[in-house]
Amino acid sequence: MKPVDPGRDTRILMDERGLTYGDGLFETMRAEGGRLPLLERHLDRLLADCHRLHMPIPDRERLAAQSTSIAAAAGGGVVKIIVTRGAGARGYRPPQDPEPRVMIEAFPLPEIPRENYTDGVSIQICSTRIGRSSATAGIKHLGRLEQVLASSELQGDCAEGLMLDEHGHVIEGTRCNLLLARDGVLSTPRLEMSGVAGVMRSLVLETAEAIGVEVREEPVMLGDLERADEVLLTNAVIGVWPVNRIDSLRWRRSPGAIGRRLMVAVAADRVPAWAP
Amino acid sequence: MKPVDPGRDTRILMDERGLTYGDGLFETMRAEGGRLPLLERHLDRLLADCHRLHMPIPDRERLAAQSTSIAAAAGGGVVKIIVTRGAGARGYRPPQDPEPRVMIEAFPLPEIPRENYTDGVSIQICSTRIGRSSATAGIKHLGRLEQVLASSELQGDCAEGLMLDEHGHVIEGTRCNLLLARDGVLSTPRLEMSGVAGVMRSLVLETAEAIGVEVREEPVMLGDLERADEVLLTNAVIGVWPVNRIDSLRWRRSPGAIGRRLMVAVAADRVPAWAP
Repeated sequence: MKPVDPGRDTRILMDERGLTYGDGLFETMRAEGGRLPLLERHLDRLLADCHRLHMPIPDRERLAAQSTSIAAAAGGGVVKIIVTRGAGARGYRPPQDPEPRVMIEAFPLPEIPRENYTDGVSIQICSTRIGRSSATAGIKHLGRLEQVLASSELQGDCAEGLMLDEHGHVIEGTRCNLLLARDGVLSTPRLEMSGVAGVMRSLVLETAEAIGVEVREEPVMLGDLERADEVLLTNAVIGVWPVNRIDSLRWRRSPGAIGRRLMVAVAADRVPAWAP
Repeated sequence: MKPVDPGRDTRILMDERGLTYGDGLFETMRAEGGRLPLLERHLDRLLADCHRLHMPIPDRERLAAQSTSIAAAAGGGVVKIIVTRGAGARGYRPPQDPEPRVMIEAFPLPEIPRENYTDGVSIQICSTRIGRSSATAGIKHLGRLEQVLASSELQGDCAEGLMLDEHGHVIEGTRCNLLLARDGVLSTPRLEMSGVAGVMRSLVLETAEAIGVEVREEPVMLGDLERADEVLLTNAVIGVWPVNRIDSLRWRRSPGAIGRRLMVAVAADRVPAWAP
């Protein structure tokens, strides 16, 4: 247990609205060969979400330059941006003229078995439910306690856990979005009330449309997983993982036809390891 | 805009799960005459919520001693405790052996007009909806973005704003719990899906039962506010405020009979300023 240190560190932390109220946003970007292949998409989302939270919009060129320089130094890995509303007095109400704090740092790439792309992954259903909130749905904000609790449920052989809302809608994984293919149509849960509108999710949906696959955003229930020909997970670090097992459900062809085409397309000119 | 400083401060902030994932809790205690009259109740809730989040339980005696010593030095005001899951690598999953970080600091008492107790306060209905989440409901966790957004709606003459959930249930204020009196019965919204189970709320409910007022936790809709004889707001800093106006609804007797009795009872031997 760290002792109370009523000094400089505590002051920095207790004045920072990102800590005290979860009043901020983040992006987790894959760095590959010293570059950030999805940088512009990440910045699009980050700045749109700043706008949604009525935060001053950070300078895009500067964010891009700083992130790029950190990626170049790191080579590969993950570059994380956090933008908070910055320091503020006690009280939820935002300061009149907040000075957002921008933090950018490189992290090592998590270990990802090659088989996750070639054979798919086994996942589970979490018992921790994801909340419903029109005010914050879709936003990659700092308040991720539900995901923390759901992640701690993950069994050793499971690469991810799916989270359902109180009505039994399947929303997403703890750190991935979810897509299903059935009869040649790609569907993914609507995110108006829950979940994070992932950068890789939007890239995959656009890619699907570009290669002629019909795309639907619609409610997804557990029964839809049972009937799916293919189940896919996406995020900006892993790319696309096909799912070969959810509890007792199994998929023999993993990746399937649609997943394979999408994986090849998103990998091209970006991150070779994302290909199956 | 604060520049990126990839140095010590950023490292402290970006490693701290309270900041990166809202993975922590807080308490806001009223200090009065160098004492913390509701300390034991705050510690009860804090430790129960640590348990609910599967966090190591901080040493109660030490928390009490540190808080008391900070209150003694401050005299009056607000003493805030933050407990987070501490430092951790990137990723939602909690570390195997987290070392919680405890921070305790004194803040000045906000300016509270005396009339808030003697004549009541005017409040508004916020358009920002409060979310529903069985995993986090009731917990005073660090993810307070909905409250941040709702607070920024507050008009200059409004002391507080009420937040409704997606179904139109009135849940609480941005920083206060809500109670209604009608025909001698005190009712307050259930908090199984939304809201913070406030320390002052529980004291007021217990006090009501002790003085023979029937108490009900039940769903509350806007129509229930219209029919209420008295509307009360509670939190551990302000005590109890009677409401004299919500948008076009007005209450002439503020505080009313039940509010006055509760205000006198919670003030006694604790904070004289809480009395009407």
